[in-house]
Amino acid sequence: VRYALKVAYDGTSYCGWQVQPNGLTVQQKLQDAIYAAFNETAVVTASGRTDSGVHSFGQVCHVDLNANITGEKLADALNVHLPSDISVLSSCVAPEGFDANRSAKRKTYCYNLYTAKRRHPLNDRYAVLVKGDVDVDKMREAAQSFLGEHDFKAYCASRSQVQTTVRTIYSLSVESQNQGDCTAIKIKVCGNGFLYNMVRTIAGTLLYYALGRITLSDVKGSIEKGDRNLVGKTMPPQGLVLESVDYGIKLFD
Amino acid sequence: VRYALKVAYDGTSYCGWQVQPNGLTVQQKLQDAIYAAFNETAVVTASGRTDSGVHSFGQVCHVDLNANITGEKLADALNVHLPSDISVLSSCVAPEGFDANRSAKRKTYCYNLYTAKRRHPLNDRYAVLVKGDVDVDKMREAAQSFLGEHDFKAYCASRSQVQTTVRTIYSLSVESQNQGDCTAIKIKVCGNGFLYNMVRTIAGTLLYYALGRITLSDVKGSIEKGDRNLVGKTMPPQGLVLESVDYGIKLFD
Repeated sequence: VRYALKVAYDGTSYCGWQVQPNGLTVQQKLQDAIYAAFNETAVVTASGRTDSGVHSFGQVCHVDLNANITGEKLADALNVHLPSDISVLSSCVAPEGFDANRSAKRKTYCYNLYTAKRRHPLNDRYAVLVKGDVDVDKMREAAQSFLGEHDFKAYCASRSQVQTTVRTIYSLSVESQNQGDCTAIKIKVCGNGFLYNMVRTIAGTLLYYALGRITLSDVKGSIEKGDRNLVGKTMPPQGLVLESVDYGIKLFD
Repeated sequence: VRYALKVAYDGTSYCGWQVQPNGLTVQQKLQDAIYAAFNETAVVTASGRTDSGVHSFGQVCHVDLNANITGEKLADALNVHLPSDISVLSSCVAPEGFDANRSAKRKTYCYNLYTAKRRHPLNDRYAVLVKGDVDVDKMREAAQSFLGEHDFKAYCASRSQVQTTVRTIYSLSVESQNQGDCTAIKIKVCGNGFLYNMVRTIAGTLLYYALGRITLSDVKGSIEKGDRNLVGKTMPPQGLVLESVDYGIKLFD
């Protein structure tokens, strides 16, 4: 039986999603939990990989199991064998033909920044410090350029091998919230898929424009001409969270 | 010269504020940083202790130093010697007669809960999971009973030795925010001072009333009669954050 799982994780201690010969990964921990619970060796397939240090609030995966367990009960059966930084939030028997990777229609990521004069330990785990003021309206202005279908090859790390670098971005919003000494800035982006490091490079490009290090025509040129020299810095992983994966159907109750 | 410091810390790894013979404490780390920076042995005095595992966004302390350093530069001089989970956010030369403990007029704490069906790793570090629905309006209703001056002896852990258990609460608010699978609930309380475990017991009492485990007359009775049998559970430390300490003057730029 094929099951679907929604999984949240704090990526701080992991070398990303995918099983590696050296280093802890989230996929390995899930597969270990399946083995511990059911004595079964199974491969867990995610909507896509997440990089080392990246977090998830709603990664979706599938796995085929012989175990005789209801869809609803699988989550708790696995959670008892998972470390505290990984949790199966929901589980169900997958609909006919479901594939967590190939069936994914839209993904939503958040990139979290905070501006402050000095580092704030309570923010550092899930957000990245920017010293000095950031003009959030400028970030919103630049965000408009990313909407729609574009060839995002300038936003793809060179070591990536993909068939096409064309992707569609449905929405890209920037919200800020004052928190006393600091301001939290949340960049939220929804698209039909993302290239390797694409969200982190979009975040860096919005930030560089807001800081005045690149111009709006650089931002537009990076998208229209695909020139990687025009983009901002690829931001560090701890600010990135995979928020949700949309399959065009309601998977979980 | 007496300096004032505003300090944020992630309390997860510490046995609270106060120096102890066994176990890491925040006070010790600050005093170690002062020794490393200036080769001076000094005692850092806080507005009050925080317990093991409790966090701070705005603890205020004072320290008397012979070091020849401007108020503004002290923060960075200490931060280079502090671990990543402690940060001096601001520093200044203290006003005449300032004492971080005795001069404190008001303190504001937040207690953070989240409701979800299953644990969320990205919330667990700074908030406490409550399984099932919580009626936030009931929490707000019960919060009214705490406002003003009362003898809070029912809210004071028995091992505490204080001259009086009378305290004044100026405000007590409950806010909730939907976050997809879960709801974050923030209890924010401002008072002229708090007894040992008082905020955590207030949080537990509001929660127990919202869950229907105690009645509104239990809540009122706990305050009017000082009966500790009527209060809710003392909630765990990781949900508690010392937000700010108010001295009735602007200390830091």
